[in-house]
Amino acid sequence: MEYIEPISRLIAEFSKLPGVGKKTAARYAFSVINMPLESAENFCDAIMKLKESVRLCKECGNYTDQEVCDICKTRDKSVICVVKEPRDVIALEKTKSFGGVYHVLHGHLSPIEGIGVSDIRIKELLERIQAGGVKEVIIATGTDQAGEATALYIAMLVKPLGVKATRIARGLPSGSNLEYTDEATLSRALTDRKEI
Amino acid sequence: MEYIEPISRLIAEFSKLPGVGKKTAARYAFSVINMPLESAENFCDAIMKLKESVRLCKECGNYTDQEVCDICKTRDKSVICVVKEPRDVIALEKTKSFGGVYHVLHGHLSPIEGIGVSDIRIKELLERIQAGGVKEVIIATGTDQAGEATALYIAMLVKPLGVKATRIARGLPSGSNLEYTDEATLSRALTDRKEI
Repeated sequence: MEYIEPISRLIAEFSKLPGVGKKTAARYAFSVINMPLESAENFCDAIMKLKESVRLCKECGNYTDQEVCDICKTRDKSVICVVKEPRDVIALEKTKSFGGVYHVLHGHLSPIEGIGVSDIRIKELLERIQAGGVKEVIIATGTDQAGEATALYIAMLVKPLGVKATRIARGLPSGSNLEYTDEATLSRALTDRKEI
Repeated sequence: MEYIEPISRLIAEFSKLPGVGKKTAARYAFSVINMPLESAENFCDAIMKLKESVRLCKECGNYTDQEVCDICKTRDKSVICVVKEPRDVIALEKTKSFGGVYHVLHGHLSPIEGIGVSDIRIKELLERIQAGGVKEVIIATGTDQAGEATALYIAMLVKPLGVKATRIARGLPSGSNLEYTDEATLSRALTDRKEI
Protein backbone atom coordinates (compact mmCIF):
# COMPACT_ATOMS: atom_id res chain seq x y z
CA MET A 1 0.00 0.00 0.00
CA GLU A 2 1.08 3.52 -0.74
CA TYR A 3 -0.06 7.00 0.16
CA ILE A 4 -3.15 8.31 -1.62
CA GLU A 5 -2.50 10.21 -4.84
CA PRO A 6 -2.49 13.84 -3.57
CA ILE A 7 -0.02 12.90 -0.82
CA SER A 8 2.26 10.78 -3.02
CA ARG A 9 2.23 13.51 -5.65
CA LEU A 10 3.43 16.13 -3.16
CA ILE A 11 6.03 13.67 -1.83
CA ALA A 12 7.30 13.32 -5.41
CA GLU A 13 7.46 17.12 -5.77
CA PHE A 14 9.38 17.57 -2.49
CA SER A 15 11.76 14.76 -3.56
CA LYS A 16 12.91 17.00 -6.43
CA LEU A 17 14.50 19.45 -3.98
CA PRO A 18 18.26 18.96 -3.59
CA GLY A 19 19.22 16.29 -1.05
CA VAL A 20 15.64 15.33 -0.22
CA GLY A 21 14.89 11.59 -0.12
CA LYS A 22 11.51 9.92 0.07
CA LYS A 23 11.30 9.82 3.86
CA THR A 24 12.16 13.49 4.27
CA ALA A 25 9.74 14.38 1.48
CA ALA A 26 7.00 12.45 3.30
CA ARG A 27 7.75 14.38 6.50
CA TYR A 28 7.43 17.65 4.58
CA ALA A 29 4.18 16.52 2.94
CA PHE A 30 2.69 15.56 6.31
CA SER A 31 3.62 18.94 7.70
CA VAL A 32 1.78 20.55 4.77
CA ILE A 33 -1.30 18.44 5.57
CA ASN A 34 -1.15 19.69 9.15
CA MET A 35 -0.55 23.36 8.39
CA PRO A 36 -3.48 25.78 8.17
CA LEU A 37 -4.74 26.40 4.63
CA GLU A 38 -3.52 29.99 4.89
CA SER A 39 0.06 28.87 5.53
CA ALA A 40 -0.03 26.61 2.49
CA GLU A 41 -1.33 29.50 0.41
CA ASN A 42 1.45 31.73 1.73
CA PHE A 43 3.99 29.06 0.86
CA CYS A 44 2.73 28.82 -2.73
CA ASP A 45 2.49 32.57 -2.99
CA ALA A 46 6.15 32.87 -1.92
CA ILE A 47 7.15 30.34 -4.58
CA MET A 48 5.22 32.07 -7.36
CA LYS A 49 6.24 35.61 -6.32
CA LEU A 50 9.85 34.49 -6.43
CA LYS A 51 9.40 32.95 -9.87
CA GLU A 52 7.70 36.13 -11.12
CA SER A 53 10.09 38.68 -9.67
CA VAL A 54 13.55 37.19 -9.39
CA ARG A 55 15.79 37.61 -12.43
CA LEU A 56 19.44 38.20 -13.12
CA CYS A 57 20.84 41.72 -12.72
CA LYS A 58 21.52 43.08 -16.23
CA GLU A 59 25.01 44.06 -15.16
CA CYS A 60 26.40 41.58 -12.65
CA GLY A 61 24.15 38.56 -13.11
CA ASN A 62 23.26 38.31 -9.43
CA TYR A 63 19.66 37.61 -8.45
CA THR A 64 17.58 40.77 -8.21
CA ASP A 65 13.97 41.87 -8.46
CA GLN A 66 14.95 45.01 -10.37
CA GLU A 67 16.61 45.52 -13.74
CA VAL A 68 19.89 46.45 -12.08
CA CYS A 69 20.65 45.27 -8.54
CA ASP A 70 21.29 47.56 -5.57
CA ILE A 71 25.00 46.73 -5.49
CA CYS A 72 25.52 47.68 -9.15
CA LYS A 73 23.49 50.84 -8.64
CA THR A 74 25.48 52.24 -5.75
CA ARG A 75 29.03 50.91 -5.69
CA ASP A 76 32.48 51.50 -7.14
CA LYS A 77 32.41 49.99 -10.64
CA SER A 78 36.15 50.14 -11.21
CA VAL A 79 36.67 46.90 -9.30
CA ILE A 80 34.77 43.77 -10.30
CA CYS A 81 34.86 40.67 -8.11
CA VAL A 82 34.11 37.53 -10.13
CA VAL A 83 32.32 34.72 -8.25
CA LYS A 84 30.76 31.41 -9.14
CA GLU A 85 27.31 31.78 -7.58
CA PRO A 86 24.90 34.29 -6.04
CA ARG A 87 25.49 32.77 -2.58
CA ASP A 88 29.18 33.73 -2.92
CA VAL A 89 28.10 37.37 -3.13
CA ILE A 90 26.27 36.98 0.18
CA ALA A 91 29.38 35.40 1.75
CA LEU A 92 31.64 38.23 0.54
CA GLU A 93 29.17 40.95 1.50
CA LYS A 94 29.10 39.58 5.05
CA THR A 95 32.81 40.41 5.37
CA LYS A 96 32.04 44.10 4.71
CA SER A 97 35.55 44.28 3.19
CA PHE A 98 34.65 44.93 -0.42
CA GLY A 99 33.30 48.13 -1.93
CA GLY A 100 33.27 47.20 -5.60
CA VAL A 101 30.77 45.36 -7.74
CA TYR A 102 30.40 41.67 -8.58
CA HIS A 103 30.17 39.47 -11.60
CA VAL A 104 28.32 36.18 -11.07
CA LEU A 105 29.37 33.44 -13.49
CA HIS A 106 26.66 30.93 -12.51
CA GLY A 107 29.10 28.04 -12.65
CA HIS A 108 32.72 27.02 -13.04
CA LEU A 109 34.22 25.75 -16.28
CA SER A 110 34.04 21.97 -16.09
CA PRO A 111 34.63 19.93 -19.24
CA ILE A 112 33.75 16.74 -17.28
CA GLU A 113 30.28 18.09 -16.49
CA GLY A 114 30.01 19.55 -19.99
CA ILE A 115 30.16 23.15 -18.76
CA GLY A 116 32.05 25.15 -21.36
CA VAL A 117 32.94 28.81 -21.85
CA SER A 118 29.56 29.71 -23.36
CA ASP A 119 27.65 28.10 -20.45
CA ILE A 120 28.87 30.55 -17.84
CA ARG A 121 28.78 34.34 -17.96
CA ILE A 122 32.32 35.00 -19.24
CA LYS A 123 31.29 36.87 -22.40
CA GLU A 124 29.23 39.28 -20.26
CA LEU A 125 32.30 39.94 -18.08
CA LEU A 126 34.40 40.84 -21.11
CA GLU A 127 31.65 43.13 -22.38
CA ARG A 128 31.59 44.96 -19.05
CA ILE A 129 35.35 45.45 -19.21
CA GLN A 130 35.25 46.58 -22.83
CA ALA A 131 32.62 49.18 -21.92
CA GLY A 132 35.41 50.87 -19.96
CA GLY A 133 36.08 52.15 -16.45
CA VAL A 134 37.24 48.84 -14.98
CA LYS A 135 40.65 48.90 -13.31
CA GLU A 136 40.80 45.55 -11.55
CA VAL A 137 39.13 42.17 -11.76
CA ILE A 138 39.38 40.15 -8.55
CA ILE A 139 38.83 36.52 -9.45
CA ALA A 140 37.13 34.90 -6.45
CA THR A 141 36.09 31.59 -7.94
CA GLY A 142 36.58 28.53 -5.70
CA THR A 143 39.96 26.95 -4.99
CA ASP A 144 38.91 23.53 -6.22
CA GLN A 145 40.15 22.34 -9.61
CA ALA A 146 37.27 23.77 -11.63
CA GLY A 147 37.48 27.07 -9.77
CA GLU A 148 41.22 27.34 -10.44
CA ALA A 149 40.83 26.49 -14.10
CA THR A 150 38.08 29.08 -14.45
CA ALA A 151 40.25 31.67 -12.71
CA LEU A 152 43.22 31.03 -15.02
CA TYR A 153 41.02 31.16 -18.10
CA ILE A 154 39.43 34.44 -17.07
CA ALA A 155 42.82 35.98 -16.19
CA MET A 156 44.08 35.01 -19.63
CA LEU A 157 41.20 36.87 -21.29
CA VAL A 158 41.18 39.87 -18.99
CA LYS A 159 44.86 40.82 -18.96
CA PRO A 160 45.14 41.69 -22.71
CA LEU A 161 42.33 44.22 -22.12
CA GLY A 162 44.70 46.26 -19.96
CA VAL A 163 42.94 45.42 -16.71
CA LYS A 164 44.67 44.15 -13.58
CA ALA A 165 43.59 40.59 -12.77
CA THR A 166 44.02 39.41 -9.19
CA ARG A 167 43.16 36.19 -7.43
CA ILE A 168 41.90 35.95 -3.83
CA ALA A 169 44.69 34.84 -1.48
CA ARG A 170 45.21 31.23 -0.47
CA GLY A 171 46.73 30.12 2.79
CA LEU A 172 45.76 28.92 6.24
CA PRO A 173 42.21 29.72 7.26
CA SER A 174 41.94 31.98 10.29
CA GLY A 175 41.95 30.15 13.61
CA SER A 176 43.55 27.00 12.24
CA ASN A 177 46.76 25.32 13.30
CA LEU A 178 49.44 23.76 11.11
CA GLU A 179 49.08 20.23 12.41
CA TYR A 180 45.62 19.76 10.97
CA THR A 181 46.12 21.68 7.73
CA ASP A 182 46.26 19.65 4.52
CA GLU A 183 49.49 19.57 2.51
CA ALA A 184 48.24 21.53 -0.47
CA THR A 185 47.09 24.41 1.73
CA LEU A 186 50.29 24.39 3.79
CA SER A 187 52.51 24.26 0.73
CA ARG A 188 50.60 27.20 -0.78
CA ALA A 189 50.81 29.14 2.49
CA LEU A 190 54.61 28.72 2.40
CA THR A 191 54.97 29.73 -1.23
CA ASP A 192 52.73 32.78 -0.86
CA ARG A 193 54.41 33.95 2.37
CA LYS A 194 54.40 37.67 3.01
CA GLU A 195 57.00 39.89 4.65
CA ILE A 196 55.77 41.21 7.98
CA MET B 1 23.61 42.14 3.37
CA GLU B 2 20.84 39.65 3.01
CA TYR B 3 19.00 38.00 0.15
CA ILE B 4 16.45 40.16 -1.68
CA GLU B 5 12.91 40.01 -0.31
CA PRO B 6 11.34 37.35 -2.59
CA ILE B 7 14.24 34.99 -1.90
CA SER B 8 14.40 35.59 1.84
CA ARG B 9 10.63 35.20 2.04
CA LEU B 10 10.76 31.76 0.39
CA ILE B 11 13.71 30.81 2.63
CA ALA B 12 11.53 31.71 5.63
CA GLU B 13 8.70 29.56 4.26
CA PHE B 14 10.96 26.55 3.66
CA SER B 15 12.40 27.00 7.19
CA LYS B 16 8.94 26.18 8.58
CA LEU B 17 9.21 22.61 7.31
CA PRO B 18 10.27 20.14 10.00
CA GLY B 19 14.04 19.90 10.49
CA VAL B 20 14.88 22.56 7.90
CA GLY B 21 17.42 25.18 8.96
CA LYS B 22 18.29 28.38 7.18
CA LYS B 23 21.07 26.92 5.01
CA THR B 24 18.94 24.03 3.80
CA ALA B 25 16.03 26.40 3.18
CA ALA B 26 18.34 28.60 1.09
CA ARG B 27 19.40 25.57 -0.97
CA TYR B 28 15.75 24.76 -1.59
CA ALA B 29 14.96 28.36 -2.53
CA PHE B 30 17.86 28.46 -5.00
CA SER B 31 16.64 25.25 -6.58
CA VAL B 32 13.23 26.87 -7.02
CA ILE B 33 14.89 29.86 -8.73
CA ASN B 34 16.61 27.47 -11.12
CA MET B 35 13.63 25.27 -11.90
CA PRO B 36 11.45 25.96 -14.94
CA LEU B 37 8.33 28.03 -14.21
CA GLU B 38 6.20 25.01 -15.06
CA SER B 39 7.86 22.90 -12.35
CA ALA B 40 7.22 25.61 -9.77
CA GLU B 41 3.59 25.76 -10.86
CA ASN B 42 3.32 21.97 -10.56
CA PHE B 43 4.83 22.15 -7.09
CA CYS B 44 2.28 24.73 -5.95
CA ASP B 45 -0.52 22.85 -7.63
CA ALA B 46 0.47 19.69 -5.73
CA ILE B 47 0.43 21.64 -2.45
CA MET B 48 -2.97 23.19 -3.09
CA LYS B 49 -4.54 19.99 -4.47
CA LEU B 50 -3.42 18.21 -1.32
CA LYS B 51 -4.89 20.92 0.88
CA GLU B 52 -8.16 20.82 -1.05
CA SER B 53 -8.60 17.07 -1.23
CA VAL B 54 -6.96 15.44 1.78
CA ARG B 55 -9.14 15.05 4.86
CA LEU B 56 -9.61 12.54 7.64
CA CYS B 57 -11.61 9.37 6.90
CA LYS B 58 -14.96 9.71 8.69
CA GLU B 59 -14.48 6.27 10.21
CA CYS B 60 -10.81 5.63 10.93
CA GLY B 61 -9.30 9.13 10.87
CA ASN B 62 -6.63 8.19 8.34
CA TYR B 63 -5.86 10.61 5.52
CA THR B 64 -8.11 10.11 2.51
CA ASP B 65 -9.48 12.04 -0.45
CA GLN B 66 -12.89 10.44 -0.06
CA GLU B 67 -15.45 10.55 2.74
CA VAL B 68 -14.54 7.01 3.82
CA CYS B 69 -11.13 5.58 2.96
CA ASP B 70 -10.53 2.48 0.82
CA ILE B 71 -9.48 0.39 3.81
CA CYS B 72 -12.65 1.15 5.77
CA LYS B 73 -14.74 0.49 2.65
CA THR B 74 -13.44 -2.98 1.93
CA ARG B 75 -12.04 -4.66 5.04
CA ASP B 76 -13.09 -6.69 8.07
CA LYS B 77 -14.54 -4.23 10.55
CA SER B 78 -14.60 -6.60 13.50
CA VAL B 79 -10.93 -5.96 14.23
CA ILE B 80 -9.66 -2.41 14.75
CA CYS B 81 -5.97 -1.66 14.97
CA VAL B 82 -5.29 1.56 16.87
CA VAL B 83 -2.24 3.57 15.78
CA LYS B 84 -0.73 6.93 16.57
CA GLU B 85 -0.30 8.36 13.08
CA PRO B 86 -1.23 7.87 9.41
CA ARG B 87 2.34 6.80 8.62
CA ASP B 88 1.88 3.88 11.04
CA VAL B 89 -0.93 2.61 8.81
CA ILE B 90 1.48 2.60 5.86
CA ALA B 91 4.05 0.67 7.94
CA LEU B 92 1.51 -1.95 9.01
CA GLU B 93 -0.01 -2.27 5.53
CA LYS B 94 3.46 -3.01 4.14
CA THR B 95 3.55 -6.17 6.28
CA LYS B 96 0.42 -7.48 4.49
CA SER B 97 -0.38 -9.28 7.78
CA PHE B 98 -3.50 -7.42 8.80
CA GLY B 99 -6.96 -7.68 7.26
CA GLY B 100 -8.92 -5.47 9.65
CA VAL B 101 -9.44 -1.73 9.79
CA TYR B 102 -7.51 1.01 11.57
CA HIS B 103 -8.14 3.81 13.99
CA VAL B 104 -5.71 6.71 13.79
CA LEU B 105 -5.40 8.65 17.05
CA HIS B 106 -3.30 11.51 15.64
CA GLY B 107 -1.10 11.57 18.72
CA HIS B 108 -0.22 9.87 21.99
CA LEU B 109 -1.46 11.04 25.37
CA SER B 110 1.29 13.24 26.78
CA PRO B 111 0.56 15.43 29.79
CA ILE B 112 4.02 16.99 29.47
CA GLU B 113 3.25 18.23 25.98
CA GLY B 114 -0.28 19.14 27.05
CA ILE B 115 -1.89 16.42 24.92
CA GLY B 116 -4.91 15.13 26.83
CA VAL B 117 -7.70 12.66 26.15
CA SER B 118 -9.78 15.11 24.14
CA ASP B 119 -6.83 16.04 21.89
CA ILE B 120 -6.53 12.61 20.28
CA ARG B 121 -9.27 10.55 18.65
CA ILE B 122 -10.21 8.33 21.61
CA LYS B 123 -13.88 9.39 21.78
CA GLU B 124 -14.26 8.46 18.09
CA LEU B 125 -12.83 4.99 18.83
CA LEU B 126 -15.34 4.40 21.62
CA GLU B 127 -18.16 5.54 19.32
CA ARG B 128 -17.08 3.02 16.69
CA ILE B 129 -17.09 0.25 19.28
CA GLN B 130 -20.45 1.30 20.68
CA ALA B 131 -21.92 1.19 17.16
CA GLY B 132 -21.38 -2.59 17.38
CA GLY B 133 -19.71 -5.35 15.42
CA VAL B 134 -16.24 -4.89 16.88
CA LYS B 135 -14.70 -8.03 18.43
CA GLU B 136 -11.10 -6.99 19.02
CA VAL B 137 -9.09 -3.80 19.39
CA ILE B 138 -5.37 -4.25 18.69
CA ILE B 139 -3.55 -1.38 20.35
CA ALA B 140 -0.52 -0.65 18.19
CA THR B 141 0.62 2.64 19.68
CA GLY B 142 4.39 3.07 20.12
CA THR B 143 6.39 1.35 22.85
CA ASP B 144 7.76 4.58 24.24
CA GLN B 145 6.35 5.93 27.49
CA ALA B 146 3.58 8.01 25.90
CA GLY B 147 2.63 5.12 23.61
CA GLU B 148 2.42 2.72 26.55
CA ALA B 149 0.37 5.12 28.64
CA THR B 150 -2.01 5.66 25.72
CA ALA B 151 -2.33 1.90 25.23
CA LEU B 152 -3.17 1.28 28.90
CA TYR B 153 -5.69 4.10 28.93
CA ILE B 154 -7.45 2.82 25.81
CA ALA B 155 -7.49 -0.77 27.11
CA MET B 156 -9.11 0.47 30.32
CA LEU B 157 -11.90 2.14 28.35
CA VAL B 158 -12.38 -0.61 25.78
CA LYS B 159 -12.58 -3.69 28.02
CA PRO B 160 -15.78 -2.68 29.86
CA LEU B 161 -17.48 -2.49 26.45
CA GLY B 162 -17.09 -6.25 26.10
CA VAL B 163 -14.40 -6.03 23.42
CA LYS B 164 -11.10 -7.91 23.52
CA ALA B 165 -8.17 -5.47 23.83
CA THR B 166 -4.77 -6.69 22.69
CA ARG B 167 -1.35 -5.07 22.52
CA ILE B 168 1.20 -5.70 19.76
CA ALA B 169 3.98 -8.00 20.96
CA ARG B 170 7.28 -6.75 22.30
CA GLY B 171 10.53 -8.62 22.09
CA LEU B 172 13.68 -8.82 20.02
CA PRO B 173 13.43 -7.31 16.56
CA SER B 174 13.97 -9.81 13.73
CA GLY B 175 17.60 -10.25 12.71
CA SER B 176 19.02 -8.89 15.96
CA ASN B 177 21.35 -10.58 18.42
CA LEU B 178 21.21 -10.52 22.22
CA GLU B 179 24.53 -8.78 22.75
CA TYR B 180 23.39 -5.51 21.23
CA THR B 181 19.84 -5.53 22.54
CA ASP B 182 18.98 -3.03 25.27
CA GLU B 183 18.04 -4.30 28.72
CA ALA B 184 14.40 -3.23 28.63
CA THR B 185 13.80 -5.10 25.37
CA LEU B 186 15.69 -8.18 26.54
CA SER B 187 13.88 -8.24 29.88
CA ARG B 188 10.53 -7.98 28.07
CA ALA B 189 11.53 -10.70 25.62
CA LEU B 190 12.24 -13.01 28.57
CA THR B 191 9.00 -12.23 30.39
CA ASP B 192 6.88 -12.62 27.27
CA ARG B 193 8.56 -15.88 26.20
CA LYS B 194 6.42 -18.36 24.25
CA GLU B 195 6.41 -22.13 24.24
CA ILE B 196 7.68 -23.53 20.96
